[in-house]
Amino acid sequence: MIESAAQAARAIREGKLTSEEAVQSCLQRIRELEPKVQAWQFLDAEHALAQARALDERKRNGEPLGLLHGVPVGVKDIIDTADMPTENGTALHKGRTPREDAAVVKMLRGAGAVILGKTVTTECAYFHPGKTRNPHNPEHTPGGSSSGSAAAVSAGMVPLALGSQTAGSVIRPAAFCGVHGFKPTHGLIPRSGILLLSRTLDHVGLFARSVEDIAVLLETLQGHHDLDPDTLPRARIPFRDLAAEEPPLEPMLAFIKTPHWQRTDADTKEAFQELVETLGAQVEEVELFPSAADAWDWHRTIMEADMAANLEPLWSKGAAKLSEKLRALLERGRETRALDYQRALRRIAPAVDSLDELFMQRYDAILTAPALGTAPKGLGATGDPVFCSIWTLLGMPAITLPLMRGENGLPLGVQLVGRKGYDARLLRTARWLEKKVGA
Amino acid sequence: MIESAAQAARAIREGKLTSEEAVQSCLQRIRELEPKVQAWQFLDAEHALAQARALDERKRNGEPLGLLHGVPVGVKDIIDTADMPTENGTALHKGRTPREDAAVVKMLRGAGAVILGKTVTTECAYFHPGKTRNPHNPEHTPGGSSSGSAAAVSAGMVPLALGSQTAGSVIRPAAFCGVHGFKPTHGLIPRSGILLLSRTLDHVGLFARSVEDIAVLLETLQGHHDLDPDTLPRARIPFRDLAAEEPPLEPMLAFIKTPHWQRTDADTKEAFQELVETLGAQVEEVELFPSAADAWDWHRTIMEADMAANLEPLWSKGAAKLSEKLRALLERGRETRALDYQRALRRIAPAVDSLDELFMQRYDAILTAPALGTAPKGLGATGDPVFCSIWTLLGMPAITLPLMRGENGLPLGVQLVGRKGYDARLLRTARWLEKKVGA
Repeated sequence: MIESAAQAARAIREGKLTSEEAVQSCLQRIRELEPKVQAWQFLDAEHALAQARALDERKRNGEPLGLLHGVPVGVKDIIDTADMPTENGTALHKGRTPREDAAVVKMLRGAGAVILGKTVTTECAYFHPGKTRNPHNPEHTPGGSSSGSAAAVSAGMVPLALGSQTAGSVIRPAAFCGVHGFKPTHGLIPRSGILLLSRTLDHVGLFARSVEDIAVLLETLQGHHDLDPDTLPRARIPFRDLAAEEPPLEPMLAFIKTPHWQRTDADTKEAFQELVETLGAQVEEVELFPSAADAWDWHRTIMEADMAANLEPLWSKGAAKLSEKLRALLERGRETRALDYQRALRRIAPAVDSLDELFMQRYDAILTAPALGTAPKGLGATGDPVFCSIWTLLGMPAITLPLMRGENGLPLGVQLVGRKGYDARLLRTARWLEKKVGA
Repeated sequence: MIESAAQAARAIREGKLTSEEAVQSCLQRIRELEPKVQAWQFLDAEHALAQARALDERKRNGEPLGLLHGVPVGVKDIIDTADMPTENGTALHKGRTPREDAAVVKMLRGAGAVILGKTVTTECAYFHPGKTRNPHNPEHTPGGSSSGSAAAVSAGMVPLALGSQTAGSVIRPAAFCGVHGFKPTHGLIPRSGILLLSRTLDHVGLFARSVEDIAVLLETLQGHHDLDPDTLPRARIPFRDLAAEEPPLEPMLAFIKTPHWQRTDADTKEAFQELVETLGAQVEEVELFPSAADAWDWHRTIMEADMAANLEPLWSKGAAKLSEKLRALLERGRETRALDYQRALRRIAPAVDSLDELFMQRYDAILTAPALGTAPKGLGATGDPVFCSIWTLLGMPAITLPLMRGENGLPLGVQLVGRKGYDARLLRTARWLEKKVGA
């Protein structure tokens, strides 16, 4: 099993491991666990091995090697791949074969990664579950919508995977599956070639088993793309180096319970109480600004209106083939007033400004729960994104760390949220926190 | 009377005219004609003279002179001025005194212009008329919403004036009043500090008595402003020089009647037939792409939804004090669905692409009417913007030239529409057309 992508990349570079061996190791793990976990929507072992052999050949020829040369990566099945189907989790896109790779897939290939296969998504990255189960207990949901990516990384089938988050689709499944999940600042990673739900809310997200691996992947995927109007041409940020630095001062965390804390389960309340005690003077409880209580409504209004507009082709061609839950969302979205939609959109910038003050004054990151508790039992639902949607709305970077466990033995995550645009500092703070609690 | 801003600026630079004399000449003309025309919402002669004297003093001190040093300019009363009230044509903003100049007013002052006064706008730059009358016949509307700016330039009260266009608020009044009216490419002139109706549709517009003067004003007002997200930092375009160049090849015009041609009056039909005959091989009739017939609906949907969102403070504070027409618009806008709004917005880019092909293939500009005919009789309405709204929606540059007259002796304009982003070429083509028809 490939534990760390960064280590595997080093070993390949130094000739101690071949990409073919790395892929074989992943395939072996998949053969063992896939019958139970069901993380993959599409996987052609021969095609993965062919990519690996070509990369090994390039290394033997002395060609320059990318950051992820030879390392296998799983890709959520709403992200277009030119050499594998991309079905967006809906029967309406069965057998859909894009002509072009998504921008992030091109970036991965440019860095030398092996696209191992496509991971299961819920229907159109919304709530209706796919087939995937939680690797820690197959009777529990892996969370969604990036269910397969979270489960595959958790089960050791692949060291890295890509997902997406429009509400809580990266942070929640990562927490439920006990892996690292990261959602960058809005606009840092281009979304061209990925099923569009909402320009304002959609983010590419990352799954890995360490902060270091998140940093390697983020360094690879940052960038401008002409077809993503929210990305900008800018200097590349050396996320690996910055994340590895020691903080110049011991970080301060703002523990924000949000108006939804009373809904968290007993495990979460207890675990966070202990964590706050452990952190002592480095954490302070902080209240959100008063109108933040409405942020969940703003998020819902924007998501419903945008999904109704962006999924209109699906709606027109086959509303009857959509799940009841998605159909209901689209029906609500079709009736959303432009006035309410615009009102919600214009709340984002002032809310980000309010939170900026928190970071400028005193804090390095916000500390909060990633979900209501451990992964709920049952496979009919993927859990509640309530602890993510406000940070998604505001486009702030967020990471969940698998630092705790519930009474039932299932993982409990710790979510850190950073200042918008300060992703490297968030990763640095996350590493500090892991050391601090002895992870 | 100051005929030409460019000539006045030259005369001032060469010491043949002082700014104080230029302003006195404007004030004299205003004293004579304002009782009939009613173009000004705010005018403090002493304040205008004080600006002029300060500018004359700067010239005497040998300070560097801007492009418009000493030249008086009229400013539509929806454009903020820190030294004069800005009432947006509504009783709800009576006595409103902005703390800061709009970006374009700062640019004018930077170029040495005298802000002569504020010109009458319809209510919130929508349809409900102000007090202004058409200088060619006071029983006829001057057009709107930039009524005062068009009438003031037409009456020789000021050589230059600023207006705004969200549907047809520059081109229509300029045509009705027999002056040059210009609406630039969307995003070329920043709109910060101007009553916001619609980010997508709002444009600053220019009034003058020659293409040369339009070019001088455009050269002054182009630019990026942080608070206008549709402007970009870019190299300054030398509009004066480019507009003055001879076209390398004789321009070709695409005569586009639009689906609304049958509504034009007999004068217009006849005048355009003659014009097309005069132009001979340099003009060809061209059909709009088929879905363009819907562009008027897209424009209406966006304008209604955006105005409902942007004028919500007025609506909440005093809907009863708004005109019936504006209230009805806001009511419609409040019920617009986000789905229809987004559908309309996403038609813009492909429509611009379709029209781009026309320009790339063969044509230098589109030739069409600026309005249904000459200024309608009566002061209760400002005329129909139907010949402008599609070009406003698409953000293409447009100019109207006072080249013809109706049977009733009132002016008839000729509208040229350029390729988006090619404002200089449009001005050059406009100059060519004026020469060609012997204007």
